[in-house]
Amino acid sequence: MTYSVAVSGASGYAGGEILRILAAHPDIEIRTVTAHANAGQPLVQHQPHLRSLAHLTLQETTPEILSGHDIVFLALPHGQSGQYTDALTDVSLVIDAGADHRLSSSADWNAFYGGDFHEPWAYGVPELPTQAGKQRANLVGATRIAAPGCNASTVSLSIAPGIAAGVIDPTDLVSVLAVGPSGAGKSLKPHLLGSEILGSANPYAVGGVHRHIPEVKQALRAAGAAEVHLSFTPVIVPMARGILATSSAPITPGASDADIRAAWEHAYGEERFVQLLPEGTYPRTADVIGANTALLGLHIDRDVNRVTIVAAVDNLVKGTAGAAVQSMNIALGLDEGRALTVNGVAP
Amino acid sequence: MTYSVAVSGASGYAGGEILRILAAHPDIEIRTVTAHANAGQPLVQHQPHLRSLAHLTLQETTPEILSGHDIVFLALPHGQSGQYTDALTDVSLVIDAGADHRLSSSADWNAFYGGDFHEPWAYGVPELPTQAGKQRANLVGATRIAAPGCNASTVSLSIAPGIAAGVIDPTDLVSVLAVGPSGAGKSLKPHLLGSEILGSANPYAVGGVHRHIPEVKQALRAAGAAEVHLSFTPVIVPMARGILATSSAPITPGASDADIRAAWEHAYGEERFVQLLPEGTYPRTADVIGANTALLGLHIDRDVNRVTIVAAVDNLVKGTAGAAVQSMNIALGLDEGRALTVNGVAP
Amino acid sequence: MTYSVAVSGASGYAGGEILRILAAHPDIEIRTVTAHANAGQPLVQHQPHLRSLAHLTLQETTPEILSGHDIVFLALPHGQSGQYTDALTDVSLVIDAGADHRLSSSADWNAFYGGDFHEPWAYGVPELPTQAGKQRANLVGATRIAAPGCNASTVSLSIAPGIAAGVIDPTDLVSVLAVGPSGAGKSLKPHLLGSEILGSANPYAVGGVHRHIPEVKQALRAAGAAEVHLSFTPVIVPMARGILATSSAPITPGASDADIRAAWEHAYGEERFVQLLPEGTYPRTADVIGANTALLGLHIDRDVNRVTIVAAVDNLVKGTAGAAVQSMNIALGLDEGRALTVNGVAP
Amino acid sequence: MTYSVAVSGASGYAGGEILRILAAHPDIEIRTVTAHANAGQPLVQHQPHLRSLAHLTLQETTPEILSGHDIVFLALPHGQSGQYTDALTDVSLVIDAGADHRLSSSADWNAFYGGDFHEPWAYGVPELPTQAGKQRANLVGATRIAAPGCNASTVSLSIAPGIAAGVIDPTDLVSVLAVGPSGAGKSLKPHLLGSEILGSANPYAVGGVHRHIPEVKQALRAAGAAEVHLSFTPVIVPMARGILATSSAPITPGASDADIRAAWEHAYGEERFVQLLPEGTYPRTADVIGANTALLGLHIDRDVNRVTIVAAVDNLVKGTAGAAVQSMNIALGLDEGRALTVNGVAP
Repeated sequence: MTYSVAVSGASGYAGGEILRILAAHPDIEIRTVTAHANAGQPLVQHQPHLRSLAHLTLQETTPEILSGHDIVFLALPHGQSGQYTDALTDVSLVIDAGADHRLSSSADWNAFYGGDFHEPWAYGVPELPTQAGKQRANLVGATRIAAPGCNASTVSLSIAPGIAAGVIDPTDLVSVLAVGPSGAGKSLKPHLLGSEILGSANPYAVGGVHRHIPEVKQALRAAGAAEVHLSFTPVIVPMARGILATSSAPITPGASDADIRAAWEHAYGEERFVQLLPEGTYPRTADVIGANTALLGLHIDRDVNRVTIVAAVDNLVKGTAGAAVQSMNIALGLDEGRALTVNGVAP
Repeated sequence: MTYSVAVSGASGYAGGEILRILAAHPDIEIRTVTAHANAGQPLVQHQPHLRSLAHLTLQETTPEILSGHDIVFLALPHGQSGQYTDALTDVSLVIDAGADHRLSSSADWNAFYGGDFHEPWAYGVPELPTQAGKQRANLVGATRIAAPGCNASTVSLSIAPGIAAGVIDPTDLVSVLAVGPSGAGKSLKPHLLGSEILGSANPYAVGGVHRHIPEVKQALRAAGAAEVHLSFTPVIVPMARGILATSSAPITPGASDADIRAAWEHAYGEERFVQLLPEGTYPRTADVIGANTALLGLHIDRDVNRVTIVAAVDNLVKGTAGAAVQSMNIALGLDEGRALTVNGVAP
Repeated sequence: MTYSVAVSGASGYAGGEILRILAAHPDIEIRTVTAHANAGQPLVQHQPHLRSLAHLTLQETTPEILSGHDIVFLALPHGQSGQYTDALTDVSLVIDAGADHRLSSSADWNAFYGGDFHEPWAYGVPELPTQAGKQRANLVGATRIAAPGCNASTVSLSIAPGIAAGVIDPTDLVSVLAVGPSGAGKSLKPHLLGSEILGSANPYAVGGVHRHIPEVKQALRAAGAAEVHLSFTPVIVPMARGILATSSAPITPGASDADIRAAWEHAYGEERFVQLLPEGTYPRTADVIGANTALLGLHIDRDVNRVTIVAAVDNLVKGTAGAAVQSMNIALGLDEGRALTVNGVAP
Repeated sequence: MTYSVAVSGASGYAGGEILRILAAHPDIEIRTVTAHANAGQPLVQHQPHLRSLAHLTLQETTPEILSGHDIVFLALPHGQSGQYTDALTDVSLVIDAGADHRLSSSADWNAFYGGDFHEPWAYGVPELPTQAGKQRANLVGATRIAAPGCNASTVSLSIAPGIAAGVIDPTDLVSVLAVGPSGAGKSLKPHLLGSEILGSANPYAVGGVHRHIPEVKQALRAAGAAEVHLSFTPVIVPMARGILATSSAPITPGASDADIRAAWEHAYGEERFVQLLPEGTYPRTADVIGANTALLGLHIDRDVNRVTIVAAVDNLVKGTAGAAVQSMNIALGLDEGRALTVNGVAP
């Protein structure tokens, strides 16, 4: 069967990427695209790369327009999905690419986002280890899905296997991320101007204030950590897309090198879209651009008794839109990888 | 008086930057430039940006040609300076931009470089705290100077003040660096091609193998650390120049926030070229391009009980050529900042 | 049916892109990948983004190894295909991504390339107008195909419609191209280093010496020009992929604005992969990255009485590998767009 | 003597660059910096690279605050200088980096800018040939100076020598420019976001609508052209700074190759900041970053009977702020190159 789809926030980066992926999905008909300020304009004016969708016009984002589709994707600024999700009772599957339905703690929501709190939905990172198995189990047959934060899922996928296996200590984690500016969306802020970003590496949200921190901690607790402490420093670098996260965790006393590597192999050995590279090799973001793949390289550093995990993800695909479509495929009982590719566009 | 200067390795990036800085130095006459494969060609063919030196021709790099100058700068591949330094007995001041005279441990040299070991020279990072004061003391009147490794000095400057003040623990350090490819020199290696670097973040020398690690450890021991353990991960990002180093160190039990901040303020409060930014602000590499400035931002993260230091340096200036000229100025008794600027070229 | 394929030059950029596209082609089995210096190594060591082909090992490039496939793609340095093409008599379809079988004039070959001249094959730019119709006609049922030069096909597609319709004068053409370095291949040349390319716009092959000039002239003569004169200036800019060609041609006396626009609309109105944008809009290379699409914007500038055509192409897709696969599809009688997309990966 | 200076628009790119250059000028005291929305904030919050000016606070831009300085630089959005320049009667030297005092034709002003027309001032491109000699003559002792548009002066410098010498025909000029986004200022517009610019070449103001066109035509008429027709296409490419302009002009019948080359050699042979490169060599923008240098490469293309001139300029230095300071030096009778360098910051 063919599912009818509406995508809100269609003039933004996350919305555009959802559309790019869905445009190649054989089971999906993109019927409606909506926006806020740009309603009434052709989609292709804001997404000139989506040539196959040149016939679509942006409509207003209202519950009435979104209702009546089999599936609705929300790609709205954080804090704005909630007003729609309550009203979309007749929609079989709603997938929120914003943060509104990610956090289970209202205290975390208030501290990092603010505004009305909304209940958490199934978390759209299927491969992420949990104490009960994997997040995938929550997505099978799901009707409401929260796509992950791009930085959050990259770091969680990097660290969770070690926690699930008990080989690392989650109370002294350090993550430093080189990220492209598209993760911040199409926002008109001075620090996102091309002139500011070209030729420079710019730290932001330094010092425990990045909004993805509580999301990582929640995911790692779900993987078995009693308590999580995390130093998290993102750095914007001059590439439109991509996250290269370097994470470091203390090794649990007694864990052998073999134990450690086995933890990640166990977690991802059978996965298509999360792959552990052979020893001594590390991923580049170029290798995952346009792909739904997270590539991980792992080093056991006995000088500091830490595991270093280097992870490469396309923030707009595996970090957001690909994760959303992969989760949709699981929820609908389709092949998990439909319309998604493991091969990056490089160079 | 005017000092006559020869620069070897003048067709490379470090040599070119030494020349760019010296070209504006009122006390220096650039008399001779030498190269290896490119000898006989006009300098400007390899350094087309050095318009004021268009009259110079590259000569062979030989002891005979280098001798007879007041000052010689060596900007040769690592392991190649030693053969010349022994022969330049008549040269008043020799400054090596290579690694040959940086390390005091022959074991480190053999493990990370190999080939003949040479004695360590005065280390060209004047502001770096030592147990006795600062490295500057060793440079006053020096006749042989080793300019630092760019990544090494950036990380050492970030961490040393906390060690000197006893507020951090040097046995569990983590540094992740976003670096431009010019730090690797003008080498014809596939991973340095533009197509490989554009649009991508590429880790390299992951896992304790980077050659600057022993140099950092040596500098931190000089600052007072009994033992240093360091996880060090450099990531090449698409900017020609610049290092953005994020370093993290555990806080010594009992050290207060005020103690910690005071350590860095004490170390750099009177320095021109190493500046601690106000609380809550962090540097961008764009702010130091072309400048001899190291900018540091410091965050005390009580969630993990670690200090995070973000440092921005132009690898070719403060990281190499600027450090060399600053050290030269000190050795000669000139104003330390002559021909050097604190202002970056941004955007 | 499934066709068996061998790709030579599989460790380079053009070879890698052919593999990326074919990996998603339902009628193709990639059986063999070959290389020269890298033979014996895993493909993924040189193309780490091709995760779905991680099982393949690079073999030697020899006629014996290439023979016995239904289809062979050659992605070798210019001048090296000829030695293989003569020997591949048993291969039903050979597609050369090099220049060896593009030019019909041995004088042009000798002037711009040199070495043995080889006969021209069907030219792999299906949409290109010819006096007889389109190049597509030569590709139907073809057994030997020459994929185009990326800059050449971009400029030819820009200008040919005006020549075919007689509305522009081909004797005073001016083309200036902003191009990414991947068009130059994975060659270890100093001017292709990342440090040289980042933050800079670098002209190359200025002054009538670029090898794609005779290819453009040949294509424009095929479109009806008696004589072609062309000023052609490529500029390498800091993006891995993409060509943004700005071409300008004098308007034939008497040609109305409507005549002019109609010429391009007539040529491409029914085409999927070459699209003329609405008046007043112009393409960006980001819009075609990863896509087989050439986007054209056209301006009629009566101040100089010239038509300006701005064209955006991904040099590795529509410029090379996509053109090769599209031509293969046509030759085999498959849907022309199989495994190809019109949607770019942006931002 | 020391001149007191006020710079308005000090939080923008042009204002920042004027300050960066003046900070190294021995005859200048930067006393006042002003801004609009950012008044009251520290300068260094908006220009974190200007470390030596960290003591300055942005004041309101009012005639009262600007008055009472020896020299005032205006770096305001186009159309906003005029309201101040009328009031600054007591200021000895006013230099406008905006367009308000560039055009002599009110019709041009109305067509390309709109709003109140203001009288033209001495044009700040000293080296530009005029029928009477050079624009420099108008700057000696000037009290009111209009700094040039960056694209305009780059193209004018490229073409004017051929017009002055009568060797090219100004009625069929074609210029295509690869430009960095800093030329558009620190404006919050979607097409200037980093995500839009990274990895892409984006044409803008195509089709005779760019505001620098009348400025080029005016400069070329001053060089002797009776009539100028110009096709002008700028393309934003992913580098923060720099203009690489490729201009093409028909050769006047009878002009020999020697005549042509002599025209440019005659114009710039004695100039420090505008240099013609040797035959067969062409400039890169990297070679002029941070420098006040315009580098030109010239090719005589007899296939199309056109001269091709490739020019590299740093839009913020020789294109704007450097031109302003160079003009100031001339007006004040100082050495023309004071505080300016010919050497670029590369790589």
